[in-house]
Order: sequence, then structure tokens, then C-alpha cells
Amino acid sequence: MDGERNITNFYVVLVEPKYSGNVGAVARAMMNFDFDKLHLVNPCTLDDTCYVRAMHAGEILDKAKCFSTFEDAVKNMDYLVSTSSIQYVKDKKHLRNPVLLEDFSEKIYEVEGNIGLVFGREDYGLYNEEIAACDIMLRIPTSESYLSLNLSHAVSLVLYTLHLKREFTPKKRRDIGKIEKEKLYEFFSRLLEEIKYPVHKKENTEIMFKRIMGRAMPSKWEYHTLMGVLSKAIEKIRNNQE
Amino acid sequence: MDGERNITNFYVVLVEPKYSGNVGAVARAMMNFDFDKLHLVNPCTLDDTCYVRAMHAGEILDKAKCFSTFEDAVKNMDYLVSTSSIQYVKDKKHLRNPVLLEDFSEKIYEVEGNIGLVFGREDYGLYNEEIAACDIMLRIPTSESYLSLNLSHAVSLVLYTLHLKREFTPKKRRDIGKIEKEKLYEFFSRLLEEIKYPVHKKENTEIMFKRIMGRAMPSKWEYHTLMGVLSKAIEKIRNNQE
Repeated sequence: MDGERNITNFYVVLVEPKYSGNVGAVARAMMNFDFDKLHLVNPCTLDDTCYVRAMHAGEILDKAKCFSTFEDAVKNMDYLVSTSSIQYVKDKKHLRNPVLLEDFSEKIYEVEGNIGLVFGREDYGLYNEEIAACDIMLRIPTSESYLSLNLSHAVSLVLYTLHLKREFTPKKRRDIGKIEKEKLYEFFSRLLEEIKYPVHKKENTEIMFKRIMGRAMPSKWEYHTLMGVLSKAIEKIRNNQE
Repeated sequence: MDGERNITNFYVVLVEPKYSGNVGAVARAMMNFDFDKLHLVNPCTLDDTCYVRAMHAGEILDKAKCFSTFEDAVKNMDYLVSTSSIQYVKDKKHLRNPVLLEDFSEKIYEVEGNIGLVFGREDYGLYNEEIAACDIMLRIPTSESYLSLNLSHAVSLVLYTLHLKREFTPKKRRDIGKIEKEKLYEFFSRLLEEIKYPVHKKENTEIMFKRIMGRAMPSKWEYHTLMGVLSKAIEKIRNNQE
């Protein structure tokens, strides 16, 4: 995996896909747009239908990795992107507050690391806890009257858009700083505790912070600077209390 | 149909689709991106599989019109757009000289009329004579190593891109001028005859002219101006010969 560093690596993660034809169609779309890493969480059997629909992309299916939990499937990834057709207009629901596919596709090539593109079940999509585990939620603009896309179509639209922007990749990219990112979230969480933030609002505000950072994709240096600010704030509050 | 004038109307035309599941998936994608007019040339039976894959888009299938020839299916259309995964790098093969999806999607909203988006068979795509009948050929950028897209994915990518650009539609649009367009092609063809253009090159050059005009999408006024030039040229040549 180390040899593949210094670039933006994409993983397609399908969570509990039910129809093998869909998985095959996803593999074909991956090959159409030069993506090859497929992670599957508790998938259906990859049967003949799956391979028929994959056409020339059988190798992607052969090399796909299966996992029994979502956590295991995304363990090696630095930045997680969820997709869901359900959004909330109200700004307060930070969990499903989305970033548009076009905007995401331009920004993501500025960072290096393993990017997981997470797609949910054909019927229920992703559960809230899976969406919460992701750094951002992606929105594919559709008709207002019918939001729900076929699984392989959704994958295809995301990969096509990423493929279009791939050539515009900047020469120098910055490390996504997974460790720094998680540390910063910890600091933010600790700050909320220090200021005695209402418990029932805490989770929602943490997710909001995660979404803001997810959209901003800060550099390591920016993470450290922010951590400096938060730790100073935490320190001050503690000193005042003593 | 007259009531729908003054806007850009899109028709999805599927030529001899073989798998009913694909037709259903196309209908769903159409509804996802606010398109509803489906013309089918000699389709497979629209069976249960088709309706299951269409999900909430059954009405699009109910209202789809079936035709026994390509000509009949596109009779009411002013401007035809073909899609094919096969292109030629050499500029001389004008037939399959493509326009990129992104560029097309911006320009097409400048004109008004009935636009046919023509998609070919799952295995053979479109025949040369069908492509020749179209005003432009569209290219969906894919990996160099695997060009061939699943039918419903190709439709989905085209409709998604058109959907994205729909909001940028200019207030005033110009009539695509189907009659003027066809007259101009006639004049060009007559000019080639008058100048004793080599017969074996004639068809290819006519298609080149059609492709240039297809990309340029001239206004009625521009068509008339060009026709004036060509008719003057034809007249001059004839007079010289007498």
C-alpha cells in the first residue's frame, strides 16, 4: 500500500448490496472509468449474473475484498464519502447536510490518501451511524420528484465525474492527515465537554464540525494550528475552573 | 406538440434494445433527471423485469412509443444526437467524429425544438447509416482501455449532464430550423455535383459538412445566409459552363 502513496486512491465500498447484477454493473462502471478497488460489506453471492453484468470487468470482482463489518471495510481509508438520496433542507440536521458531486470532485484531487466512496443498500441506503462515520455526504443532483437512483447508476455518475476531473489533478498534493483529523475531532469533543455543552446537542454538533472539516479538507499544518487553538481554549477553561 | 414549442424538448430513442431490464433502468434514470419522452425502435417485450427495474417510472414505460423503423421513431425531431463508444482518431472519418458530452450539454439549450438522444443496441450499438442520419455524435469520456458502457449507464450519464445544465438555460432560444438545415444540406450536395466532386468522396464530405453544422448549431438567419452563398456559387458555376 505504501508504494501507492502520494496519490489519491479511490475505493468503491458497497454496503450490503442485495442484487448480484448490481455488483456486476458497478464493476463494469469501475473499469469504464479506471477504478479498480472494490470493498464489499456482507454482499450477496457474486454469482453468474454478477459476472455477466460485469462484462470485461471480471477481474475487479475477482480481486474485490469482502468484509463482515463496515468498520473493517474502511479501516485502511483516510477519508470517507457517503452517498444518500435523502437530505434535509434544514441546516440543523448536519448528518445529511450534503456536498454537491461537482464541487467534491474538484477538491478531492488536492489531497492524497485512500478515499472511500461508500454506497448503501438498494432499499435502505446507508444507516445513520454509517453516514456519521463518514467525513462528508455527497449529493448527486436529481429531479426533486424522484431522488432515488439505481445503485450502479449512482456509482457510475460519481466515477464518471471523478474521471472527468482526474486530468486536472495538481502536481503537488497534501496528505489528508488521518491521525491529525481524528485528533482534532477529539479536541473538539473535549472542548464541548469542558464548556458543559448540552449533552443532547453534543452528537449533532460534533457531526456538524466533522462535516465542516470534511468539506474544507484542511492540510496537516491547518489541523495542527486548529488543534493548538482548541487545546489552548481547553487549558484556559480548566485553569479558570481551578 | 405545438404547445410544447419554444423550449428544448428531449426524446430518448432506444434502437432495438434487447434486454427489458435495461429499458426499465433507462425509464428510472429518465424520471431521476426529469425526462419523460421515450421512443423505442423494435424493442424487446416490456415485461415484468422491465417494470421492476423501472421502479416508480412505470408511467414512462406506459407512455413510451414503439416504432418499427428508425426513421419513423425520429420523424418529429429537429436535431438528432447519436452516441457510440467507437470513434476514429483520424479526422477524415467524419461519420464518428465526436463532440464531448460536456460541450454539447452547454450548447444544446441555446436552441429550441425536439432533440432526439439516440442510443444503440447493447451489442452492436448504432449502425453507420443510423449515425449518418444524426446531426452530431456524442462522446462520453471513458477509460481508454474499456470504452463500452452499459446502455442504461450511458443514458444516465447523458441525462444527468443535461439535467445539471438545464438551469443555465438562456431566456431566449432560437429555432433549430429543421427545414432550413435540410435545405442547406441539399444545396451543399448540389454544389458538390456542380463542381464534379469525386463520387467516392462525396458521401464522406457531406457527412463532414453535416457534422460541422451540427456542432455549430446555426440560427435560421445563418442558414439562410449560407444557403445564399451556396446558391450563388452554384449559379455562377452553371453560367460559366453554358
